[in-house]
Amino acid sequence: MPELRRDPVLGRWIIIASERRQRPTDFRIERMPVKDGGFCPLCAGHEQTTPPEVWACRLGADQTPNGPGWQVRVVPNKYPALRIEGGLDKAGEGIYDRMNGIGAHEVILESPNHNEQFAYLPPDKIYYVLLAYRERILDLKQDPRFRYVMVFKNHGLAAGASLEHSHSQLIALPVIPQMISSEMDGAASYYHFRERCIYCDMITQEISQNVRVVGQNSDFIVISPYAPRTPFEMWVLPKAHDSGYSHQNNASLSSLAAILSETLRRLNAIIPSVPYNFVLHTNPLRSGNLDHYHWHLEIVPKLTSIAGFEWGSGFYINPMPPEEATRYMQEAKL
Amino acid sequence: MPELRRDPVLGRWIIIASERRQRPTDFRIERMPVKDGGFCPLCAGHEQTTPPEVWACRLGADQTPNGPGWQVRVVPNKYPALRIEGGLDKAGEGIYDRMNGIGAHEVILESPNHNEQFAYLPPDKIYYVLLAYRERILDLKQDPRFRYVMVFKNHGLAAGASLEHSHSQLIALPVIPQMISSEMDGAASYYHFRERCIYCDMITQEISQNVRVVGQNSDFIVISPYAPRTPFEMWVLPKAHDSGYSHQNNASLSSLAAILSETLRRLNAIIPSVPYNFVLHTNPLRSGNLDHYHWHLEIVPKLTSIAGFEWGSGFYINPMPPEEATRYMQEAKL
Repeated sequence: MPELRRDPVLGRWIIIASERRQRPTDFRIERMPVKDGGFCPLCAGHEQTTPPEVWACRLGADQTPNGPGWQVRVVPNKYPALRIEGGLDKAGEGIYDRMNGIGAHEVILESPNHNEQFAYLPPDKIYYVLLAYRERILDLKQDPRFRYVMVFKNHGLAAGASLEHSHSQLIALPVIPQMISSEMDGAASYYHFRERCIYCDMITQEISQNVRVVGQNSDFIVISPYAPRTPFEMWVLPKAHDSGYSHQNNASLSSLAAILSETLRRLNAIIPSVPYNFVLHTNPLRSGNLDHYHWHLEIVPKLTSIAGFEWGSGFYINPMPPEEATRYMQEAKL
Repeated sequence: MPELRRDPVLGRWIIIASERRQRPTDFRIERMPVKDGGFCPLCAGHEQTTPPEVWACRLGADQTPNGPGWQVRVVPNKYPALRIEGGLDKAGEGIYDRMNGIGAHEVILESPNHNEQFAYLPPDKIYYVLLAYRERILDLKQDPRFRYVMVFKNHGLAAGASLEHSHSQLIALPVIPQMISSEMDGAASYYHFRERCIYCDMITQEISQNVRVVGQNSDFIVISPYAPRTPFEMWVLPKAHDSGYSHQNNASLSSLAAILSETLRRLNAIIPSVPYNFVLHTNPLRSGNLDHYHWHLEIVPKLTSIAGFEWGSGFYINPMPPEEATRYMQEAKL
């Protein structure tokens, strides 16, 4: 019997169509054509082909910006969706609202080497990427025009990646993305009713039920959410309540790197070259620490033809029950 | 300068990244492999390979069900996402909510002929498809378990179609899809503030501004919405206020068929074999007529790699300003 499940925060209903169940090997992966020998502007040695860096992590003695020797490098997007210069000029137009497309659009180069994929970086290198996210959020927070920094990764053709070289992106926005504000509204409703954080309650219930816990360490837990949109959707949550990613200290980011690395490697072991997005869900820049919100990272593999009516209706059909995805993940051979 | 625009109903912000502008011919279309000579279960003469029909339109004297002679035929989906038999058995599971996956999942066969595409059917044949939608909604409304009937079409590989033969689908649900309830909430807020329907105000403003009106006839208007998610997103709205598709009379459906046909043919003239979804946005089955809600059809071409972070964040980057899409549509050679 298929099942309808409700996301407790967003109120989104999902169909778990387990009768349409597929084995992980049944998913069709469209691989990105590898451009061997082509020129890659993100590779080490090609620093002059990107806009000047805004942050970098250099492990050696030579800390000269925009030269080689970096491990992680953050540069403005050469073709930004938003512009950094100018005022917002908010205005109405009858019933409509608009403002100038002011914002920052940056690319986080996750490795100097073209062929190193994020999932296969050693955890201590993933740590530098996570550090870059924190440092860029803290820096962009100083710009009073911005209200949110959205950090995300598109990996693989199906997930919208257009460059092969491993990278993630961030967009600093003068508005709060709708899904984040819906999430905060849902979490606030729960908090007003129960005076507890819904994500903290979720973690307690998941540990107690123990059927959707993919993995955990001292600081973080990875779960298959109760109402996942796609096969192998997974959320990484800090065990201790905290609404903001930028509050994390280095030890916490190191712990996150370890569990994120293991999670992505297990996922790749089950579905080689899996295309996926991850999106950091964190509090808005001006909100301060919130009792009702809990930052987390959502990993969403792109395996089903979700391109259909689903995102037009907010209604998802998922052939893979999260309890089964969890078992696959636990049994994955690393 | 890119622009941020807010959907007035959902509150969703969109980036109009006109500096990333593409000509319509720049969009890469992945075509579905044509299986010439293969067996198609949806073709006339193959009625026995589908589950027995639940509705059909036969123009000739022979009205025998499940034989040939039909123009439009509605059958249960052979691999339904939901099951028709059983009780809902709503239950909580700690903080989570679930119910049985009860619902109807039907396929609307839009033509007896394999090679006739919906967009190229003569309007009087599109009319029968629109009639099928209405009749199925009215029939499914009699089942007290259902609260919403979602009617949608996936056309083309990128839009999630898995069968070549022209068809649309409907899913009758025991819950209201999130996007519809968000839309109804947004429209209700506006109504409480202004005591006017926001869609009626939108139509008035669009006609007066006249920069996003793609087409109109006596009963319907087609607009490029102010904050479109994708290039060439278009909405078809009835000019007279009405919250429910199922209230439409035959004359109104005939008028809708004419304008929908013209819109899709213009779109195909600009972007041959364009993949698209359309989703009918109408009132819930139990809500009665609503002063604040206005049914409409949303046409969403799948041209950009929206598969990325966008549907994970509710934030869309659209390289094509709707005013420009409107000009392309108006100038399209039919």
